[in-house]
Amino acid sequence: MKNKKNENFSEWFTEITQEAELCDLRSEIKGMVVNMPWAVMTMKKMYAIYEAELERRGHRPALFPALIPESLLNKESEHVEGFVANVLWVTHGGDKKLEEKYALRPTSETIIYKMYSLWIQGLKDLPLKIYQSCQVWRYETSATRPFIRGREFWWIEAHDAFATREQAEQQVRDDMEMTELIMHQQFGIPFMFFQRPQWDKFPGAENTYAADCLMPDGKIVQQPSTHMLGQKFSKAFDIKFMDENGKLQYAWQTCYGPCIWRIYASIIAQHGDDKGLIMPFALAPVQIIIVPIFKKENETVVRDKSYKIKQMIMQAGFRVDVDFSEQTPGSKFYKWEMKGVPIRIEIGEKEANSGILTLARRDSSTKEQVEESKLIAKITDLQETIRKNLVSKADDYFISKFFNASTKEELKEQLKKGGFVRIPFCSIDVDGKECADEVKAETVADVRGVPFDSNEKPKYGERCIHCGKPAKVYVYAGRQY
Amino acid sequence: MKNKKNENFSEWFTEITQEAELCDLRSEIKGMVVNMPWAVMTMKKMYAIYEAELERRGHRPALFPALIPESLLNKESEHVEGFVANVLWVTHGGDKKLEEKYALRPTSETIIYKMYSLWIQGLKDLPLKIYQSCQVWRYETSATRPFIRGREFWWIEAHDAFATREQAEQQVRDDMEMTELIMHQQFGIPFMFFQRPQWDKFPGAENTYAADCLMPDGKIVQQPSTHMLGQKFSKAFDIKFMDENGKLQYAWQTCYGPCIWRIYASIIAQHGDDKGLIMPFALAPVQIIIVPIFKKENETVVRDKSYKIKQMIMQAGFRVDVDFSEQTPGSKFYKWEMKGVPIRIEIGEKEANSGILTLARRDSSTKEQVEESKLIAKITDLQETIRKNLVSKADDYFISKFFNASTKEELKEQLKKGGFVRIPFCSIDVDGKECADEVKAETVADVRGVPFDSNEKPKYGERCIHCGKPAKVYVYAGRQY
Repeated sequence: MKNKKNENFSEWFTEITQEAELCDLRSEIKGMVVNMPWAVMTMKKMYAIYEAELERRGHRPALFPALIPESLLNKESEHVEGFVANVLWVTHGGDKKLEEKYALRPTSETIIYKMYSLWIQGLKDLPLKIYQSCQVWRYETSATRPFIRGREFWWIEAHDAFATREQAEQQVRDDMEMTELIMHQQFGIPFMFFQRPQWDKFPGAENTYAADCLMPDGKIVQQPSTHMLGQKFSKAFDIKFMDENGKLQYAWQTCYGPCIWRIYASIIAQHGDDKGLIMPFALAPVQIIIVPIFKKENETVVRDKSYKIKQMIMQAGFRVDVDFSEQTPGSKFYKWEMKGVPIRIEIGEKEANSGILTLARRDSSTKEQVEESKLIAKITDLQETIRKNLVSKADDYFISKFFNASTKEELKEQLKKGGFVRIPFCSIDVDGKECADEVKAETVADVRGVPFDSNEKPKYGERCIHCGKPAKVYVYAGRQY
Repeated sequence: MKNKKNENFSEWFTEITQEAELCDLRSEIKGMVVNMPWAVMTMKKMYAIYEAELERRGHRPALFPALIPESLLNKESEHVEGFVANVLWVTHGGDKKLEEKYALRPTSETIIYKMYSLWIQGLKDLPLKIYQSCQVWRYETSATRPFIRGREFWWIEAHDAFATREQAEQQVRDDMEMTELIMHQQFGIPFMFFQRPQWDKFPGAENTYAADCLMPDGKIVQQPSTHMLGQKFSKAFDIKFMDENGKLQYAWQTCYGPCIWRIYASIIAQHGDDKGLIMPFALAPVQIIIVPIFKKENETVVRDKSYKIKQMIMQAGFRVDVDFSEQTPGSKFYKWEMKGVPIRIEIGEKEANSGILTLARRDSSTKEQVEESKLIAKITDLQETIRKNLVSKADDYFISKFFNASTKEELKEQLKKGGFVRIPFCSIDVDGKECADEVKAETVADVRGVPFDSNEKPKYGERCIHCGKPAKVYVYAGRQY
């Protein structure tokens, strides 16, 4: 690749999305890309993993209309205020003006909670845990970037309703656990959940807990967030149930939104290198690529062996392909390295006759030899080895990016290293907003909030980095993508 | 159920979608329903089966924007003319009027073929076979019905481009074969592919081949159609490739559109009865339901056995649930029959102690006894037995609904029986349209076209049912849903 990940990450990222054929930017629709097969095949697997885990935890899938009448969107005032500037509006059907305009869903709380008010009557209807896999549209006015910020993106939204605050709070922790199991352990993307400051929470939520990840340039990117909605929406949408004493109560709600499209960006960015993508084994569209190396005179023996090995691997349940295109072995290596295929097996006459195969790992650039009879066992091992290696590399990077500062000068200095800088701060309630705005204006650092369930408290005498009042919290700040 | 399938099908259909909790009609958005978990779980399986088969046949998934600029939609004149009256238009982003209005995709030819013109340059880029699973929106002005006709529905669209007409024609046959393998053999929905008359083809196609199925009231419903697009779109969108002689040629194209949402309607209608749904085993969200029957004194032994059996079935890879809700066994039977679960196992004290289980089949209303040690083998057998039974019942009905007529009087008479009536006809080219319109006005029968690859030709002397000119073709007519 022309660009180096560690020198000019931003250009590297754009280049890899083009070189690995992940998306096409020429759709003629501003901020909406064409997601190409190699990307979609991985995103389908990401969806499948997430959906299975959601269902295992008691969520059921549904599909709600993509259009939301304006009157419904307007029901929760903070919510509509937060989204209305970014709504794409459907106003006409054929050549007729619609009686009421429809929002292309920027998120689905309003339509879903309208239905919840019909579905929830008594304790027997609770908890209600439903998710939908869909795309949403937001009329972004800032610059868009494939897989990171677009006017159309693909996500999952899970919406849960409970009888008690405690159950809703437990769900918030459950959502975090799911994020850990999937995004960290399976996809290899480390994160930290922050309780967002009040001025930066989801519009209509009591509290937002968002997983912040790091890009290789040290900038922060927000990944799944889970929101404690409290009873704000249940009051706006009249979601009530009869409790055990025959009294009507408002439901307690949470929602959780892993954005598959954006998590894919983190996967590209976190694991890729200057040769291209490095796909986690579980998410690779092709997990093992066989590259036959032959001349005219030994073509048959190599071809037969290649197909035999392919067949064997396929029967073991792995995704395998053999590249018999008319390119040189060198350009095939280049291509499949760019595509991030985890394991490459080269088969020449020697391998065909000896029964000893060479496996090249994409993640570690190492090679291993294995007897044909032990191939499947080897691949099965590597599956876990590769996963662990990617997680551990990502963790090493992530852990190295936490810093401290107690003055704005220190903060500016630390920010150069990228990552998160812990600073003493006056408050993450609304009255802290002014300080946060000033800090951002002076240092470009966003105040991301307080780590979830953190016991860290500023020591006596520590003062807010901006206003100088006694610090009540440590917040983490950094440059946002 | 209040309504009987064979007496008032239309009301029965609406009732079953509500009683089995398949959709909710109270979304406040005209013609757009909320698809509820039980329906979505089945549609997800339908998608998975279709997508796997498409990929096995060389298609790859992609995701194209849901919005299409007006100028792009306008590029193929017949196409835009066919769809423009039903387009929902996005005109504003936030409070700003967009420079160009966007169509919410009614179908994706225009955006996809714009990309094909960029992706296809030479023979190495062909064939290009891409599909997308998505929803589309059409501003229907006629009455909408859940899963049959709506302003929003879920489908797959596969778009293929080839170097030669022959390859494109072969793809049309391949699409039909796929329909047979999936819709008929797996979902149990028989159909016949008709070459549609020229006045009823897909806007922009050379020829449309559509699978017509029957509803239980004898009305015809169109299911997947495959279209021979010829070079019409490739000329409109400039999709050209350099052939082996260095000459630029326009690509040959086809597209295929199985509407998952509507095929689901056929599954409900075809297999269901007056107790509720009957789900094909492969598509049932729950394949085996265990209903424990106990009193206080034997609750533990029944509960333990029920969980043990559930565990055993689950480990064998089937979808199983045990209903421990606080309802009577009777209401549990009622509920799971309504939901169409293929196999019910009742477990009481006797079953818990004897090791002999009773399996109740939903499709045949029969019961069978089986030793616990042979349970998994039995379920594995039943899986295929149930599939065959549903296919065969559906076939019997379908085959019985073909009739003949040679005058309009006979046609009217035969139409009372429902199904397809074969009539001698002047032409399915444009000059036959007037006769078709007259036949419809007089008899309510739609002319559906000529069976694909049919050799049936009217005998010398037979005359068009309307104009009396010598008949050139036998067409099949019937009432359309």
